[in-house]
Order: sequence, then C-alpha cells, then structure tokens
Amino acid sequence: MNLDNVPDIIVSRLPVYLRALERMYDHAIMTTSSQELGEKVGISAAQIRKDLSQFGEFGKQGTGYHIPFLIEHLRRILHVDHPWNVVIVGMGELGHAIARYQGFSVRGFRVAMCFDSDPTKIGRPVFNDLKMSGLSIQDEKNLVEALRGSNIKMAMLCVPASAAQAVTDVLVEAGIKGILNYAPVNLVTPRDIRVQYIDPTVGLQRMAYYIKE
Amino acid sequence: MNLDNVPDIIVSRLPVYLRALERMYDHAIMTTSSQELGEKVGISAAQIRKDLSQFGEFGKQGTGYHIPFLIEHLRRILHVDHPWNVVIVGMGELGHAIARYQGFSVRGFRVAMCFDSDPTKIGRPVFNDLKMSGLSIQDEKNLVEALRGSNIKMAMLCVPASAAQAVTDVLVEAGIKGILNYAPVNLVTPRDIRVQYIDPTVGLQRMAYYIKE
Repeated sequence: MNLDNVPDIIVSRLPVYLRALERMYDHAIMTTSSQELGEKVGISAAQIRKDLSQFGEFGKQGTGYHIPFLIEHLRRILHVDHPWNVVIVGMGELGHAIARYQGFSVRGFRVAMCFDSDPTKIGRPVFNDLKMSGLSIQDEKNLVEALRGSNIKMAMLCVPASAAQAVTDVLVEAGIKGILNYAPVNLVTPRDIRVQYIDPTVGLQRMAYYIKE
Repeated sequence: MNLDNVPDIIVSRLPVYLRALERMYDHAIMTTSSQELGEKVGISAAQIRKDLSQFGEFGKQGTGYHIPFLIEHLRRILHVDHPWNVVIVGMGELGHAIARYQGFSVRGFRVAMCFDSDPTKIGRPVFNDLKMSGLSIQDEKNLVEALRGSNIKMAMLCVPASAAQAVTDVLVEAGIKGILNYAPVNLVTPRDIRVQYIDPTVGLQRMAYYIKE
C-alpha cells in the first residue's frame, strides 16, 4: 500500500465514515455492512468498499465490518488515534463558541491555546466557570514564541477577513501546518500548509442555486 | 445553455469566485483576469474560464472581467441577487453566534426566525442590545406553523446530534428545501432537499491525515 497516492477525495470521506461508525458504536451497535453504512452517510456501498480497500482488508464477506476494529483503523489512518493540540486565533463570539465546544475532544482535538489582539480580552478566561479549564486568552503578539515552544501544528482561524492573511503568515512562521479557516476569504500559503475552509455563506449560496422559489 | 446539467463541482466553486470578486470590489478594484482571480482562490485560470463559460460570455480577450458585471451575473446565477430569509433551529452558543453574525446579510441571507425547545430560552431576545433587531427565540413546537406562513426555504441546524434527524423531519414537513447542518451527524432527507454539512472536526481530521508529526 502506498498511502501517499490515495486521492484526496477518498481521504475527505474517511472522517465521515468514522463519524457515522462512532455514532453507531455509541448506540452499542458492533457490526455493520457497507450497505448500512452507505445509507447513513449517503454514499454507495460499492464506493465505501472501494475507498476502504485503499487501506487494507477490513470487512468479511457475509459478516460485514466489526465496528470497533474499523474505528480503530480509521483513527490510525487519519492520525487521530492520539489527541492533537490546536490553537484558536480570534476570540470573538465564534472563537468562544468553538473554544467551548465539547465535541472536539472525543474526536481527537483539544483546544490548548487561544489568542486575540484586543487588549481588553487578553488574560480573560475562556470559560465563565473557571473550574472548567485553565484556558485564558493570550496576546496575539506572543503567538510565534508560544507556538514554537509547543507541539501545536493546527490552528482554527476566527479573525475578521481583513486580518486573516496577516495572521496566516504569522501562523506559518510559527510552524503551523494545518489551518481551519472560518474567515470568509481565501488564504495564500506555502504548498506544504493545508487549509480547510468553513464559510456558511458558501454553503447557503450553493443550496440557493438549486432551490426554486 | 441548459443550467440543469451544470456539474455540482462547478456550482460549488461559484460562491468562492463570488466571494473573491466581492472582496476585490470592496477594495475598489474594478477589473480582473482569470489569472489574478485564480491566484486569489487557488484554482487555475483555465478552470475558472471553463467554469464561467457554462453560464455565458463574461470576459473579453485582453481586458479581462469587469468585476461589477461578473458579480451581478454570479449573484443572479446563484439566486442570491435578492435576499433569502433563513431560520436557525437550536439556539445554544453556536446558534447565537450564527444569528448575530453580520456577514450573512451582505451576501444574500437574513436570519428571520430562531427556534429552540428549551423553555428557559423561549421569548428571549437574540441580541443583547434590543435596538439591534426584533429577533427573539420562538418555541420549536410552533416550527411547522410559523414556517408554513413564511417564505423561508432554508434552515441552519444547530441542535445536538441526537436531535438533528427529528428536527430535520419537522423542517422538511414545514417546507424547508435546504439545510445547512452544523450537527455532527449525517441526515436522511427526501431527494429534493439539499443538505450542506459544516463539521469542523471533519476538516481537522482531513488535515491530520496529511500532517507529519
């Protein structure tokens, strides 16, 4: 198996399979078929079998997939079998909602640092309940120094569009390799930096194309 | 031109082109080339020309694209040349952040109603500053009735994963045709309903695949 040659479109479906399998496991379901999984994720059984076959042999003819086994392998393939520390830059309302979101940690990610450039925010705790976490907002000026002394390789970018490129340049300088970008603007980065875009308006506009009024 | 046959992958890129063009226009830039636009969105000039050619003739050899003209046409093609009213269901921290986000309205969408099932939230204003908007949280029990009397065709779903499918069924019953789903779960819907997924963890996991530690 040469995992360097797996098409990105296949990689993009693996987290969706993993999410559905984890959900079944949470409901104490231990086996599934490509047919059943396909119905849950809206992808054909044949496609699922083809995607998974890139990485090995996970199911048995007739008995299907053992869910804990497949979850374990997908987590390993995606490198989320150990937790990743991530940083949030831009602690407005969205940044706070993301920092407080409880759903990341069970799926492999932990918000380890938060930054903002607004002096009135720096030093403030992220959670209202101080017992919840020691997380507090740090000064964006110290971003490079703080990240270089850490193992953090991923960032969630929640700054306004006008600041997004400048902050991205700093994140790259600080050794960040993946950016989940919530700012509604395309980022220019070196080739070895991965960027994923989250822009709800793009999703709404894409749906508007299809909806007749 | 038969717009029914435009591949979805092309449709998915139009909002990204539109966003970049609107940003240039905000900076008082009035013309661009497929080359320059391509550098901004990370897509080749040839692909951009091919995508746009599906919908007509927008640029001139040598002079490129007139940005206000192209914006106007892209907005018309995407049906966002008039504002869409949208509903939010699930007014937790994320629902509030989305409801208060100022970036939707300039790009064609207006949050017109908000619902939650929590009795302690119902009736509460969405904005702390009451002068900002008359928007307040309505009882989820009244969803079907309220939507049927409206022109709302799109919903943003911000409820927990465990409630997402049941609320989706209600939204479909109420005549919703497009759902932007923030709940980390796949939804089963009739074929004529469009669903777009926003799950940051899927984005993070997809990046984790590529990042060497």
